[in-house]
Amino acid sequence: LTKRIHSGQSAHQLLVGGTAQRFDPGPPPDDGGEPRLDVWGFKDSRFVINPANNVVLEGSRYPLSGKELPAFLPWVRSTFQADINAQDTHPSQYPTNIPPSRASEDLLQALRGIVGEHLTVEPEQRLRRGHGQTQAEMYAIKYGRLERVPDVVVFPGCEEEVVALVKLAEACSLRLQPYGGGTSVNEALLCPADEARPIVAVDLARMNHIRWIDPINHMACIQAGAIGRHVAAQLDQHGFTLGHEPDSIEFSTVGGWIATHASGMKKNRYGNIEDIVLDMRVVTPMGILSHSTPLPRESLGGDVRTWLLGSEGTCGIITEAIIKIFPAPESQVYGSILFPDLSRGLAFMYELSQSAHIPASARMVDNLQLQINFAIKPKANRWGALKSALEKKFVTRIKGFSTDKMVACTLVFEGKRAEVKAQEKHVNSLAKRHGGMSGGASNGRRGYMLTYGIAYIRDWILNHWLIAESFETSVAWTDTLALIDRVRKRVADEHAARKLPGRPFVTARVTQIYATGVCVYFYFAMYYKGVANPSAVYHEIENAARDEILKAGGSLSHHHGVGRLRGEFLPRTMSEAALHWRAGARAALDPRGTIGGQTSAS
Amino acid sequence: LTKRIHSGQSAHQLLVGGTAQRFDPGPPPDDGGEPRLDVWGFKDSRFVINPANNVVLEGSRYPLSGKELPAFLPWVRSTFQADINAQDTHPSQYPTNIPPSRASEDLLQALRGIVGEHLTVEPEQRLRRGHGQTQAEMYAIKYGRLERVPDVVVFPGCEEEVVALVKLAEACSLRLQPYGGGTSVNEALLCPADEARPIVAVDLARMNHIRWIDPINHMACIQAGAIGRHVAAQLDQHGFTLGHEPDSIEFSTVGGWIATHASGMKKNRYGNIEDIVLDMRVVTPMGILSHSTPLPRESLGGDVRTWLLGSEGTCGIITEAIIKIFPAPESQVYGSILFPDLSRGLAFMYELSQSAHIPASARMVDNLQLQINFAIKPKANRWGALKSALEKKFVTRIKGFSTDKMVACTLVFEGKRAEVKAQEKHVNSLAKRHGGMSGGASNGRRGYMLTYGIAYIRDWILNHWLIAESFETSVAWTDTLALIDRVRKRVADEHAARKLPGRPFVTARVTQIYATGVCVYFYFAMYYKGVANPSAVYHEIENAARDEILKAGGSLSHHHGVGRLRGEFLPRTMSEAALHWRAGARAALDPRGTIGGQTSAS
Repeated sequence: LTKRIHSGQSAHQLLVGGTAQRFDPGPPPDDGGEPRLDVWGFKDSRFVINPANNVVLEGSRYPLSGKELPAFLPWVRSTFQADINAQDTHPSQYPTNIPPSRASEDLLQALRGIVGEHLTVEPEQRLRRGHGQTQAEMYAIKYGRLERVPDVVVFPGCEEEVVALVKLAEACSLRLQPYGGGTSVNEALLCPADEARPIVAVDLARMNHIRWIDPINHMACIQAGAIGRHVAAQLDQHGFTLGHEPDSIEFSTVGGWIATHASGMKKNRYGNIEDIVLDMRVVTPMGILSHSTPLPRESLGGDVRTWLLGSEGTCGIITEAIIKIFPAPESQVYGSILFPDLSRGLAFMYELSQSAHIPASARMVDNLQLQINFAIKPKANRWGALKSALEKKFVTRIKGFSTDKMVACTLVFEGKRAEVKAQEKHVNSLAKRHGGMSGGASNGRRGYMLTYGIAYIRDWILNHWLIAESFETSVAWTDTLALIDRVRKRVADEHAARKLPGRPFVTARVTQIYATGVCVYFYFAMYYKGVANPSAVYHEIENAARDEILKAGGSLSHHHGVGRLRGEFLPRTMSEAALHWRAGARAALDPRGTIGGQTSAS
Repeated sequence: LTKRIHSGQSAHQLLVGGTAQRFDPGPPPDDGGEPRLDVWGFKDSRFVINPANNVVLEGSRYPLSGKELPAFLPWVRSTFQADINAQDTHPSQYPTNIPPSRASEDLLQALRGIVGEHLTVEPEQRLRRGHGQTQAEMYAIKYGRLERVPDVVVFPGCEEEVVALVKLAEACSLRLQPYGGGTSVNEALLCPADEARPIVAVDLARMNHIRWIDPINHMACIQAGAIGRHVAAQLDQHGFTLGHEPDSIEFSTVGGWIATHASGMKKNRYGNIEDIVLDMRVVTPMGILSHSTPLPRESLGGDVRTWLLGSEGTCGIITEAIIKIFPAPESQVYGSILFPDLSRGLAFMYELSQSAHIPASARMVDNLQLQINFAIKPKANRWGALKSALEKKFVTRIKGFSTDKMVACTLVFEGKRAEVKAQEKHVNSLAKRHGGMSGGASNGRRGYMLTYGIAYIRDWILNHWLIAESFETSVAWTDTLALIDRVRKRVADEHAARKLPGRPFVTARVTQIYATGVCVYFYFAMYYKGVANPSAVYHEIENAARDEILKAGGSLSHHHGVGRLRGEFLPRTMSEAALHWRAGARAALDPRGTIGGQTSAS
């Protein structure tokens, strides 16, 4: 069928047929991927320092898995000016003292009446539903304590059970906390210490089916708990692509993407989540938000669907969504381009953003991030090492690039063969005009894939006295360079003012381009041995960086969302009336704050 | 500057410069276009039957202006089976009995304290602000009566005056009704007969400036009262295009587009209004909804900006918006393709929608609308007539097309030359596969331009006993043909059941394509001589058609909006909880219904 449609030979018959040929693709695949509870990632993959004193990613899941990374530790030591080694660790105390469940036997009975045995009060399971992936949360579960976590985790199997849970919560004054992949980075999952109501985490893991695929109208109806990598794999089996590829796609869910107002790496081709979601169903204390038919576009005057994008776990529990799906691309090509410095690279990105040939993904890493790319390169074989040395010589001697200034753009082209070819041609000629030179497809692919590794590295190095976090913003083109410079300087100043050990590490990546501006993604990392309350110190510096971002014309968030983490900054972004409206609109759906409480200041 | 930017030569310097080079393009152009109060259009243009008994569009504004259309009346007569002629008219009684102003001298004084002498109580001016362009409204101002119209029209000159007006309205219990171009087709401008408060129309005509153009970040800040054609002309002067081209662009305003959730003819290239608007300022009873900086994209968790799209004149008065602007296209090409029947044409459109080469505009008219295109063709000169006859012979004899089945697709290509060429090539090869043949660029252009003529014709033929209206929907691809058939049949049945004179006229056009479905735009017209309350009868039949649309899987509205006209159908589209939320969200901004009352049922 898919082939028939894609060839277009029988579009006529299909349309005259008149009936949507929806089908159920069956349950999600079992790929054996089990997430860890204490750190980011799958159980079978983690970074370690091996007996030869080299960093290795254990397991076999990723291209990098099992390969020694001899350049990594030396680079870390010199970058942070700190002696990171296998002997000197800050061992994780996970799971630290987990608050006991406050769920009464009566409550558990009532919940069992709804979800049967699909619930747990097991401490580590409750803990996991009470946090996301910020540095503060990860530090707390290893070395500190979460004051309040869910008292019980329930796993509803269908929308009816979600409705019953919401009714119970309203009747018995519970707080429900929807949980998808747990990849939140805005502290929306944190439970306030003073929440007196029992907290029930509603984990949507069992509601993880693609209910139907409509291959003609290019839509799929997917339950909110479906995990990105599973959805992508199932669509792929039927000749479609999901298109939406957030960095968290291995673990994050359809419902989570909507609640977070997510953005995917291939946005240029497939759009952000708001461009992809056609419809959704949401269970609220006022009833089910729903709509008659999934349609391409409507003007309905106050459409709750658009507003629920970014609801951040409040107001209602998203149970399913209808999204656009896309024909699997005929061709997929990676690429990378080196530029002599960030401003040249950015000028290239600017022109690319105005063109008709924008690759699915185009990201620009600054010099420090480019150094990471080199630092985590596996040990090359002899020929590889020679080639690499020659290339480096060419770049630095012949082209005159400076290794501590050059930057790189990683590219993913997707589409019809001719389309990809035209994009590649355009990109190459544009790059040349801006002093760029090809860095090769394999470097492009590694750069793209590195995205999946960063969170592993972040959680691992915490045990080696390095605390790190990412934060992002969006900004107009003409403010981009200045914003990056200001944030770098501000963080360095804040770091120096506190007389912290080692050297601070701040690096920026332009991860999305729009005709009007970009998304800038920062990493800040610091050595914390001997620092009291390093997580709190980090938070202060991150807040200072956020302050600087706002002063430099950046947004509060491009796609991470506001949550609890950035709520205090909202009044600097939205006018008082806008915040007033936001609170009122939420109250109209959930007057008691039953669902998720109130995440962000309002 | 513009040239520099477009050439991209100095993108580097521009970005390193760091400052947005915003400029004020000055006041809107004076193009002498003055709208009529009693019917659609400019004062200098109207259709008449000339002494030779041919239809002519008077004036010189349009390509069609001044040319005799000899085929038009004969076609109308045969199509409606009704004797339309110059002698048999239903003369307009405009302005019918206009309700007197209820504005007290105290109120006028208070208003003068805000807007100075920029106000009027002149009856025809008040009448005009109390209606849009539906058949019911146009019939009422000619032959019936509007029970309630604004009591005074004010013309604020700046946002501060709008704020003062809203404060006054809250303090003195007034109802404010924002007014842009008056092109609404959902009765959002109608004043309920039982509105006891004084009604103040807030006409934004003086707030019509492009405040700035940012040529690097591709944004413009435009006051809400700026008229589409002026904005387009001003942007064009500086090398940019607006991209957003609703059928009403000659009269409708930036604020109106946002409030209506508008869609433009070149959506495929430039997006719908929600894709174009980056930010807005809205004055509400709770204060000004605003936001710190215009940014490419944000995740703010409950962003009022997205929700105000489609506010339909309620909740607040939009004062300005920041929109994306686009480089003026290097190339613009029109095209048209004939297909043997609608299903073949639609299959072509389906495949086009899935491709990487979609023209800025692609619209498919059914056979009846194609007939209109031919019927309003000006009298050809001798060579033109010969050519036309030969072409017709070729189409019907050689290609075997049936003149009462064939349909046409009109196309507008815009972009870089190479891009347009690639699109044309793709379209032509696709068309061939679906049995299409080129209808030529000039027919394409005429088809596109006809859009601007339809409303003139609609209002003019009302005087000749023909009442007509358009209504639209969006629908998934596989339901499209069935929906069109069902609506045609339902209207014919309803017409027959009422034993109405003449033959009903129902025609459909696919005006927008999405990967998931289309927008279908219907015209229904009927002969009403001897019919009591023809406007009410028409409304009944339109409602029946709407019922059929919903049953066939169509939406309540693709881009006309809901307003008062379609409010009764909302519960069939949105769940009870969604409607409840909508009312609550509105109440959070405007608890007293000061701005626009409540337009649609909730």
